[in-house]
Amino acid sequence: MSNTTDTAALVAEVDRLKLELQSLQAKTGVPETTVGAYLLERLAQLGVRSMFGLPGDFNLGFLDVVEDHPKIDWVGNCNELNAAYAADGYARIKEDALGVVLTTFGVGELSAINGIAGAFSEMVPVLHIVGQPSTSQQKTKPLLHHTLGDGRFDAYTQASKPFVIHQVALMNAADAASLIDEAITICITKARPVYLALPTDMVLQKVSTERLSIPLSRTPPPNDQQTEDFVIDQIYQLVKDAEGDVVVLVDACVVRHDVRKEVAQLLKETGFPVYAAPMGKTSVDENNPRYGGIYVGSLTDPAVKERVEDAKLVLSIGALLSDFNTGNFSYNIPTRHNIELHSDHTKVQYARYNGIGMKGMLPRLTEKLRSFHSVSSKIPVPDFIKKVPGEPSHDITHLWFWPRLSFFFQNHDVIVTETGTANFGILDVPLPAHATLVSQVLWGSIGWSVGSALGAALAAKELGRPRTILFVGDGSLQLTVQELSPMIRKGLTPIIFVLNNKGYTIERCIHGKHRKYNDVADWKWSSLLDTLNDGGKVPSESYTVTSKRELNELLDNKEFASAQKIQLVEVMMDPQDAPAALIRQTEMTGQGNAYGNAD
Amino acid sequence: MSNTTDTAALVAEVDRLKLELQSLQAKTGVPETTVGAYLLERLAQLGVRSMFGLPGDFNLGFLDVVEDHPKIDWVGNCNELNAAYAADGYARIKEDALGVVLTTFGVGELSAINGIAGAFSEMVPVLHIVGQPSTSQQKTKPLLHHTLGDGRFDAYTQASKPFVIHQVALMNAADAASLIDEAITICITKARPVYLALPTDMVLQKVSTERLSIPLSRTPPPNDQQTEDFVIDQIYQLVKDAEGDVVVLVDACVVRHDVRKEVAQLLKETGFPVYAAPMGKTSVDENNPRYGGIYVGSLTDPAVKERVEDAKLVLSIGALLSDFNTGNFSYNIPTRHNIELHSDHTKVQYARYNGIGMKGMLPRLTEKLRSFHSVSSKIPVPDFIKKVPGEPSHDITHLWFWPRLSFFFQNHDVIVTETGTANFGILDVPLPAHATLVSQVLWGSIGWSVGSALGAALAAKELGRPRTILFVGDGSLQLTVQELSPMIRKGLTPIIFVLNNKGYTIERCIHGKHRKYNDVADWKWSSLLDTLNDGGKVPSESYTVTSKRELNELLDNKEFASAQKIQLVEVMMDPQDAPAALIRQTEMTGQGNAYGNAD
Repeated sequence: MSNTTDTAALVAEVDRLKLELQSLQAKTGVPETTVGAYLLERLAQLGVRSMFGLPGDFNLGFLDVVEDHPKIDWVGNCNELNAAYAADGYARIKEDALGVVLTTFGVGELSAINGIAGAFSEMVPVLHIVGQPSTSQQKTKPLLHHTLGDGRFDAYTQASKPFVIHQVALMNAADAASLIDEAITICITKARPVYLALPTDMVLQKVSTERLSIPLSRTPPPNDQQTEDFVIDQIYQLVKDAEGDVVVLVDACVVRHDVRKEVAQLLKETGFPVYAAPMGKTSVDENNPRYGGIYVGSLTDPAVKERVEDAKLVLSIGALLSDFNTGNFSYNIPTRHNIELHSDHTKVQYARYNGIGMKGMLPRLTEKLRSFHSVSSKIPVPDFIKKVPGEPSHDITHLWFWPRLSFFFQNHDVIVTETGTANFGILDVPLPAHATLVSQVLWGSIGWSVGSALGAALAAKELGRPRTILFVGDGSLQLTVQELSPMIRKGLTPIIFVLNNKGYTIERCIHGKHRKYNDVADWKWSSLLDTLNDGGKVPSESYTVTSKRELNELLDNKEFASAQKIQLVEVMMDPQDAPAALIRQTEMTGQGNAYGNAD
Repeated sequence: MSNTTDTAALVAEVDRLKLELQSLQAKTGVPETTVGAYLLERLAQLGVRSMFGLPGDFNLGFLDVVEDHPKIDWVGNCNELNAAYAADGYARIKEDALGVVLTTFGVGELSAINGIAGAFSEMVPVLHIVGQPSTSQQKTKPLLHHTLGDGRFDAYTQASKPFVIHQVALMNAADAASLIDEAITICITKARPVYLALPTDMVLQKVSTERLSIPLSRTPPPNDQQTEDFVIDQIYQLVKDAEGDVVVLVDACVVRHDVRKEVAQLLKETGFPVYAAPMGKTSVDENNPRYGGIYVGSLTDPAVKERVEDAKLVLSIGALLSDFNTGNFSYNIPTRHNIELHSDHTKVQYARYNGIGMKGMLPRLTEKLRSFHSVSSKIPVPDFIKKVPGEPSHDITHLWFWPRLSFFFQNHDVIVTETGTANFGILDVPLPAHATLVSQVLWGSIGWSVGSALGAALAAKELGRPRTILFVGDGSLQLTVQELSPMIRKGLTPIIFVLNNKGYTIERCIHGKHRKYNDVADWKWSSLLDTLNDGGKVPSESYTVTSKRELNELLDNKEFASAQKIQLVEVMMDPQDAPAALIRQTEMTGQGNAYGNAD
């Protein structure tokens, strides 16, 4: 039994109980703070250093408190959708913290809703704080600006409901602190967005600081010991029956539910081969010789496919089985060969064990299974290595581009890829140790990567990670282009590769290959950073590359690679060129849609 | 009794009944079309010539039909929120048609939701068509991209519900045509957004063309004759008791519910003085000598205020009593002096008559009240004239800017103003005959004006109106800046005044006068059109003006004024300068919010 994890779970449980008690037994004589300051202090305790959003009537008073806060920096975004994307990207990199976005009643919060829904879908902890009219106005319901004109003040909260795991409105000081604690705790433990409504007149109301001395924690409660013992025995027996022929398949929730370290330890001590689903890429070190690359059902490289599907047992950790994450649901792993570990349940073959979460069980499983190391560590794993294919043409193709880029990446890079060619192109290339890939495979909202890269780059800077690299198509970038402006204003230095293929190539792959509706306007990308620059004060550089040679030269340039200033690289590509994995995936998608006509 | 209107109402009623009959008695042997083509044909019949939106998986098949349609042009927007704004602006100018926006499942439709909610709030007929997964996928609910990962395929439709007047999903060919007709009819008669879900496999299903020969109409059903007679008598008696001392107060719904002509006739035949609420500006001809300007409660010019509030009777037409439209609810008109005409009811003093709509009643009221012309036409009306104040400073102030612009405006101009300084600045200046002001006073979503101006400019072009002029602040423009790109791509030639005051001046007026959160980055506005230009092919011109002299010279330049190419004018203004009406309004708003602290 792993003492460290178990102790952490127990400490967290004790704190939760203390907080519950405190709600019932408030002390007197404890210093007071304001509701606004209390909320910020809780966020600061969890490592939040940047807050996203826009000012708007109904949140300006709270913004005073934010602007004056010594630890939290206000990032004025250009619009609310981008702000939500940024909070999502921030949370994905600051894995111990959460993303926070502040909007205003109606107009602001609704603009952010797609970004919040994406965070729900992809399981990212984002706290959405909404400035609302005063508690008295919410009772009298005057026909204010930003309303629907019919007194339905609750319509926006209702609209948000399907996309958050919890909603709360702070309507009086007496329970504000405990409601804030509850909301934040749910957000970080469930790794899902939470909606917190803050009426204008609540911001400066007084609350006790007493609870602030008890930390909030994302560590889940301990599993039921007897059930966990039983499950571990079951798994042990299956591994034994399989004679150690096990492969581990990691997926998105390894990161979302905070078991990166536990999984690394399992892999180290057991020697099991490991593969990743697309959404699990970089959740384990890709330089580990036991790492064999991406498994994505029928779209998998044949050597990998055989290894995964022929294993006697697959130990799947944190799976999220969406269409684009599974090669259109084409996993070929029999249930009787399959064990699934999730944040709040475990499946062993056909049996499901509710309440048995992986965070608590993984260390104990590692202890139990380490005896298989001598056998399991000898199971062969296909090489997953960097190799640039020889191509006679000078043009920059996806086939060449992504392997070439793999030699450009460095340890600790934060790599953000847009839904589209980039999400698929990146899959087949190994990324360095401690590099993190940020992508939105399930939700797939085009334009997301730009806002997300802003948040990710800020988080990377806070963590001392020197480079954030964004890959985005020209079509997607047009949706959210203004968010390059806060990058410049905040002194961030991402490298932005704009794959200029004159439109939405992912859509072209699905349907309408030569249709005009998949084309976009031809912007002068090389002058964009200069146009958005903050009074021309911030150094920036833009490049256009049209051939392999030009790109090679740029990538080999040490000053470029050092990412000391914000840089944009326009990469000219053929509108119809796409990574092979995307072409195969979208053929299946198009069939499922039954569009019915050729074009 | 006015024969024209009455006949129109009867013809519309006959058509409605024919359509109802047709649903029950489908003929055989009638040519067929597809569901997609049927929908487009209905829209084309109503005058729709441009459709807004973005391609996305789940709407690509329908886009084939749109792209191939001979009458409807696809406007590829840069993002969905902007597309919804554009559909809204289009509908506001093409008053006989409607705006149409096409998005895709989840990611697309949610991005548009704030734009749709704005159209609901402001009563603009916008049809939101959403491409959805196929009918079979909606039954099996696979974990597709763009889903929440939990099979809740109906979550997005639910989220949209508070913001539309009607929702429908086309799930089989048998009732598709009648459901389309019902959806469009509700949209245009209620002047509110409607949500229409179109699964991928429905687009090419066959439907009969039979219904297409019966037109859809926005003319409301005739009022109940006896009640209407009674109401008209009541009003007549009040006007008589008032000895013809009546003022007419026009508001937003004069335009939204299509009674511009009826109101003009009433004013002509009775000679009543007329004033407008902010949202009703340009609903009547401002060059009419009987027009006295804007009434906005306690914020009104004293000469106007006295005239309106001292009248023995106020005939209010199409009122929408929101905070910014009424000087924070400071109307000083006793209910016993007040008559309100609405689209679906009438109020006479304290009495409410449901079902008595203004469209049918206005012509009869005009007939009844024309006898007061000799008296009423002599009631004095304050001059509402153009006059530029003398100011010693060279700086461009709001006090000077708006009156100066009033000499630049021409007949038939389409003038779009952003929420903020522009919405308030424009109020006090007379606009030419047949000019239309497009603004979003109630919903007030910043950035709206840019998308809206795209739609308005397209509509203006279709109607042969030569100029569209946009006034937007630098802060607001950053939210939606990319929508200048489709303007360029579509060859539109708006004149775009960017009021550069380094941030959100309307927020500064409400709260946080010197706070950083109200500042925005300082873009190089003069290079923006060039950066967004479509391969540099489209002529454009940008200017920066820093003094009254520079702006005067530009406005007097005939080539500039002829609006033959897209032009952007950056107008340098003091960050704290604002129109007087905005300052007075926001003082009241800030108090209502009870932010509680000074800054």
